[in-house]
Amino acid sequence: MSRWAVILAGGVGSRFWPLSTPERPKQLLALASAEPLLVDTVSRLAPLVPPERTLIVTNRTLAPAVRALLRDLPEANVIAEPRSAGTAPALAWAAAEIQRRAGDAATMLCVHADWAVADPEGFRQTLACAADVAERNAGLVTVGIVPTRPDPGFGYIQPGAPADGARRVARFVEKPDRATAERMVREGFLWNSGIFVWRVGDFLSEVAALSPEVAPALPLAATSDIEGFFAAVKPISVDNGVLERSARVFVLPGDFGWDDVGTWAALHRVRAHDAGGNAAAGDAHVVDSNGNVVHAEGHTVVLYGVSDLVVVSRDGLTLVTTRERAADLKRLLDALPPSVRDRR
Amino acid sequence: MSRWAVILAGGVGSRFWPLSTPERPKQLLALASAEPLLVDTVSRLAPLVPPERTLIVTNRTLAPAVRALLRDLPEANVIAEPRSAGTAPALAWAAAEIQRRAGDAATMLCVHADWAVADPEGFRQTLACAADVAERNAGLVTVGIVPTRPDPGFGYIQPGAPADGARRVARFVEKPDRATAERMVREGFLWNSGIFVWRVGDFLSEVAALSPEVAPALPLAATSDIEGFFAAVKPISVDNGVLERSARVFVLPGDFGWDDVGTWAALHRVRAHDAGGNAAAGDAHVVDSNGNVVHAEGHTVVLYGVSDLVVVSRDGLTLVTTRERAADLKRLLDALPPSVRDRR
Repeated sequence: MSRWAVILAGGVGSRFWPLSTPERPKQLLALASAEPLLVDTVSRLAPLVPPERTLIVTNRTLAPAVRALLRDLPEANVIAEPRSAGTAPALAWAAAEIQRRAGDAATMLCVHADWAVADPEGFRQTLACAADVAERNAGLVTVGIVPTRPDPGFGYIQPGAPADGARRVARFVEKPDRATAERMVREGFLWNSGIFVWRVGDFLSEVAALSPEVAPALPLAATSDIEGFFAAVKPISVDNGVLERSARVFVLPGDFGWDDVGTWAALHRVRAHDAGGNAAAGDAHVVDSNGNVVHAEGHTVVLYGVSDLVVVSRDGLTLVTTRERAADLKRLLDALPPSVRDRR
Repeated sequence: MSRWAVILAGGVGSRFWPLSTPERPKQLLALASAEPLLVDTVSRLAPLVPPERTLIVTNRTLAPAVRALLRDLPEANVIAEPRSAGTAPALAWAAAEIQRRAGDAATMLCVHADWAVADPEGFRQTLACAADVAERNAGLVTVGIVPTRPDPGFGYIQPGAPADGARRVARFVEKPDRATAERMVREGFLWNSGIFVWRVGDFLSEVAALSPEVAPALPLAATSDIEGFFAAVKPISVDNGVLERSARVFVLPGDFGWDDVGTWAALHRVRAHDAGGNAAAGDAHVVDSNGNVVHAEGHTVVLYGVSDLVVVSRDGLTLVTTRERAADLKRLLDALPPSVRDRR
């Protein structure tokens, strides 16, 4: 039995503006601890999977920075996609890579590089349990997070019939409206976290059988032709392209303080608070203030008598907004001149 | 008839932290316009008084910076007090200096270096009128500002009997409580602004007659012994040491958008607003926000969806507070570590 970790670290995005840039996206920022989220992720998995069996799937822009952060990993374990094609091709390529190195029976534990987890031991126990279920049942196992709020920002999973200590998946639900989210939380639906566990042979045979977007390219993956493979696939997520079409999908509930750290406001959940309920990191000084999130890099931030703000400073630029508004920076980024918005 | 300006520019203070420092106090900051308040003050008086008749009274720390800002002024017109002794000695020294250069009949228009004035033409007309009254009546004329709010932060003047187009001063009132301030505003009291106009001979004879704190040192002023003079005087304000004791004090009402720019929140009164009622200066970008004051020096500030905040940035440090709290930074400064509070 060999278990591998596959960490998806190719994400880009602007939700952590002004800190996030194309060269330094969220997973490379130290948002939940003093280390970048990617480093947290590798450390969290380390008791379960050693560095030589940990693969990072990222893009060509980020690969040098990822290798520099993760010196314990063999260089070949940092895979640079030539283009972004969604999670189905990324995981199929990683599965083929593991298959080449360790054979069909190797199990892969798939996670994203940009999450926070409050209870890493619980996280590892759940993943180990999911691997057991996958290995015993030739199943594709997803970990569904027990919701802590009716968040319309997630996809949901409806657990179905019990099976070997897990449940079959009754159905996947795309991001719902708020009323539907509230109903689903009441009815025991789980968040679709993106944690997947399976043996590489089982996954690749499902891709071959169910995913015409990816299947024709699989022979290119088997011969390590990464350019050819990513040129040949049609972009699609593993949820849409494989799991929703598969009859052997299982779900295991996960309750270990998972957080996708979706916006600056999420740092208020993820980070430790002071007595005033402020979550501050960096050179931040908070006086007579409550419920604020401060992230100060290379700049000193002083808060005095303010509440529920998000203040983010980097060298040369400070953003001041509210926890509510921090969830949607799109209007702001549209309004800012490019010289400010795109500053590196 | 020669009219001189005397600009008191020796103030220190921490109400404009983190921008103000002992080396760069409020009057040297560009708070109301793109120029430092001191430069605004000289420009405002320039149509009334030329540079060679403009004196600046400051301290030894600030004198080099003041001279550098005011290259049109003769170097000798920037007077550096060897120690701070209140406004009575400062104005007595300036009066003696003008007396030496221009004789007893010269009139001095005394103002502070750190005010904003919305209507400079009205300001100059009032000062010219005050000079006329002073010169005709051998009087000490103070300009009392018509209050725009019952502010307990000012001293008040009760106008008395009419006299030559002005009024005698019935009495001076120290900073009142709020209820008293409200009553006084209803009853036509004026703010004691610190604008004083008199002939130097009249002022010096009142000092000699009424101010034992300063009078014994006057011969040292007459011989230009600045060290001796400031060592010999007892510190006292011109209000307490001269005006409140004098029977020839007049008051003229002033209504020209005077503002003492007492705190960061005052910038909301003093500066132009955008459509959202934000008063922003420097590299500030304000989106979906209302009623904020932003002052950004050497740093970019972005506001998004926030209201009634004060955000002040300088190189390396940003303060975020509310307009209400900005009026009293003492608690904050007491709470901050010296490395932050005293940063230059």
